[in-house]
Amino acid sequence: MSKKVLLLPGDGIGPEIAAEARKVLDLVNDQFSLGLEMDDALVGGAAIDAEGDALPTTTWEKVEAADAILLGAVGGPKWDTLPPSERPEKGGLLKIRAQLDLFGNLRPAILYPQLAHASTLKEDVVSGLDILIVRELTGGIYFGEPRGIKTKENGVREGYNTYVYDEEQIRRIGRVAFEAAMKRGKRLCSVDKANVLEVTMLWREVMEDLSKEYPEVELSHMYVDNAAMQLVRAPKQFDVIVTGNMFGDILSDAAAMLTGSIGMLPSASLDVNGKGMYEPCHGSAPDIAGQGIANPLAMIISAAMMLRHSLGMEAPAAKIEAAVDVVLDQGLRTGDIWSEGMQKVSTVEMGDAVVAAL
Amino acid sequence: MSKKVLLLPGDGIGPEIAAEARKVLDLVNDQFSLGLEMDDALVGGAAIDAEGDALPTTTWEKVEAADAILLGAVGGPKWDTLPPSERPEKGGLLKIRAQLDLFGNLRPAILYPQLAHASTLKEDVVSGLDILIVRELTGGIYFGEPRGIKTKENGVREGYNTYVYDEEQIRRIGRVAFEAAMKRGKRLCSVDKANVLEVTMLWREVMEDLSKEYPEVELSHMYVDNAAMQLVRAPKQFDVIVTGNMFGDILSDAAAMLTGSIGMLPSASLDVNGKGMYEPCHGSAPDIAGQGIANPLAMIISAAMMLRHSLGMEAPAAKIEAAVDVVLDQGLRTGDIWSEGMQKVSTVEMGDAVVAAL
Ligand SMILES: CC(C)[C@H](C(=O)O)[C@@H](O)C(=O)O
Ligand SMILES: CC(C)[C@H](C(=O)O)[C@@H](O)C(=O)O
Repeated sequence: MSKKVLLLPGDGIGPEIAAEARKVLDLVNDQFSLGLEMDDALVGGAAIDAEGDALPTTTWEKVEAADAILLGAVGGPKWDTLPPSERPEKGGLLKIRAQLDLFGNLRPAILYPQLAHASTLKEDVVSGLDILIVRELTGGIYFGEPRGIKTKENGVREGYNTYVYDEEQIRRIGRVAFEAAMKRGKRLCSVDKANVLEVTMLWREVMEDLSKEYPEVELSHMYVDNAAMQLVRAPKQFDVIVTGNMFGDILSDAAAMLTGSIGMLPSASLDVNGKGMYEPCHGSAPDIAGQGIANPLAMIISAAMMLRHSLGMEAPAAKIEAAVDVVLDQGLRTGDIWSEGMQKVSTVEMGDAVVAAL
Repeated sequence: MSKKVLLLPGDGIGPEIAAEARKVLDLVNDQFSLGLEMDDALVGGAAIDAEGDALPTTTWEKVEAADAILLGAVGGPKWDTLPPSERPEKGGLLKIRAQLDLFGNLRPAILYPQLAHASTLKEDVVSGLDILIVRELTGGIYFGEPRGIKTKENGVREGYNTYVYDEEQIRRIGRVAFEAAMKRGKRLCSVDKANVLEVTMLWREVMEDLSKEYPEVELSHMYVDNAAMQLVRAPKQFDVIVTGNMFGDILSDAAAMLTGSIGMLPSASLDVNGKGMYEPCHGSAPDIAGQGIANPLAMIISAAMMLRHSLGMEAPAAKIEAAVDVVLDQGLRTGDIWSEGMQKVSTVEMGDAVVAAL
């Protein structure tokens, strides 16, 4: 039975890194006779430019039909003056997340031993770092209503958004996190601001309640301000972190940066059946787009994550990850992870090296 | 004309560090004939235990009458089972902030050269670090209505909070930040999530508008997830950061932790006339309370900040800061900032050393 994989290159460095991931996927498709049916489509700014819509119908149809999606990145200054709902982010990325109900966002922050020096943190603080952040992705303040900007009676304008979660939304992301913790170190830290925000008091209560079903998992709670501090102070204290959409956005980016090599980190956004969209953690990096210097490894590792999580193809996933290890051991580095004594390579050279290692 | 200073020791290590700040204030009061009228009162958990209310009327009357307030810290596990609005945080601290309209929160993150090793970040990344975070403190999602937990028609409970700012609130905190930037490096970074949240689109617009009045200040904008990354990646890129209540809570704690010595950092919360409450950035640290080992320096430096900002007493403020420098140069360290070769001292010994240096 063939599986449909949709590649959405997107904007900025997206197309450059997508091309390298495509080479890798085509190769393992042959090597392992995976029967992947590869297709691609425009999304975000690229789709706005070509068809006037960040998520055109033709793209949406392919997204819906796909078994798994691999996305580069969306957005850039070119489209920042559009009304928010038409921008690459809200009109493209957030719409796919919402319409496919990809509520479970997995963001690993792992330090590659070969790149330990790239971290701005001292080596003993981050060596061996391996955190998984589970972020709720289709609820919370990103999607809450009412929202907008209105003019009050006194003529002063006011902006407002609503941070809202119900028990069911909290429970289903909690389950993803507890299950993930069961497969790892069995420690789960739930992050909230329950000393101030009612919505996160409910969050904490539901997590407590759910923990009864997972007696083996040690559940703790931390306020978001403290979590931001603890990530800087002693990040290795964490195994799995679970939190809402906005806190997850902030903390997962901070955690990724602890490794110093955000160009290496994948992410998965999953629905309740495991169908998912996979993306590198870094964004569209418009400042270096078109120069052929972007790091394609996060995209390639995201492809491996996709094979494993959504398509049940462990062997090619592991082989891709091993190939990435090989090129790092060979000393090949794109500019973002380059250091003295290493060999600086381009996006295409890095992709070719992974292909060669496969 | 005498000035009324109110000391609110609060909970946890609060009373211990407040006692040391008191010694220091009493001494400079004499040395400089400042005419400070010192008083103190219970707040937070201590007030709940004594009078059943985190902000008793007697305390509130003193708070209102004071020219400046110096607070230790509030909160602790003992009171975490109370209804939120009665807890030390909401019932005490947030109430004072709101009722005095202390909207302008200044949180410096400064690396003391003597303590550079205490940071978990590499020395070249943080040496010379000097960031000022300006956080809006009486609006945003902390105070927004409607808020609560309700049961929906389908019987499922839902928690909700409202993130709201109007133009006037944004403009007045913006002004504090632009003014602060004028006195420093003239670079201001406004942090928002304008690609998703309408309330922060208005925030960005007002900041842009305000920047016309401060042509000398270079204004930039950054999404909050990127700001959390940039603080870890290259914190010295920042001069002044301005942001809302919740993002400010998270980012200022992360920034403070970059220095590795949160036990050294003061904060100010000011109203429109400069009346203010001053607090150390660290919390009530219930785990080490009562042991006499807490670091009193953040509290002592907060006292200096109070003399300067709210009471216009520059000379004694500078003298206190110089005395702190002296004790650090002498190698005296409480446990939180101790390192090999330095002399470990108690809370009281540290306070005495500052007094001696004065
Ligand atoms: C582009 C933006 C809307 C998005 C988000 O905040 O979710 C991004 O920052 C991410 O974390 O995937
Ligand atoms: C205690 C808590 C309510 C408070 C806040 O979040 O404002 C604290 O974290 C702070 O930053 O002063």
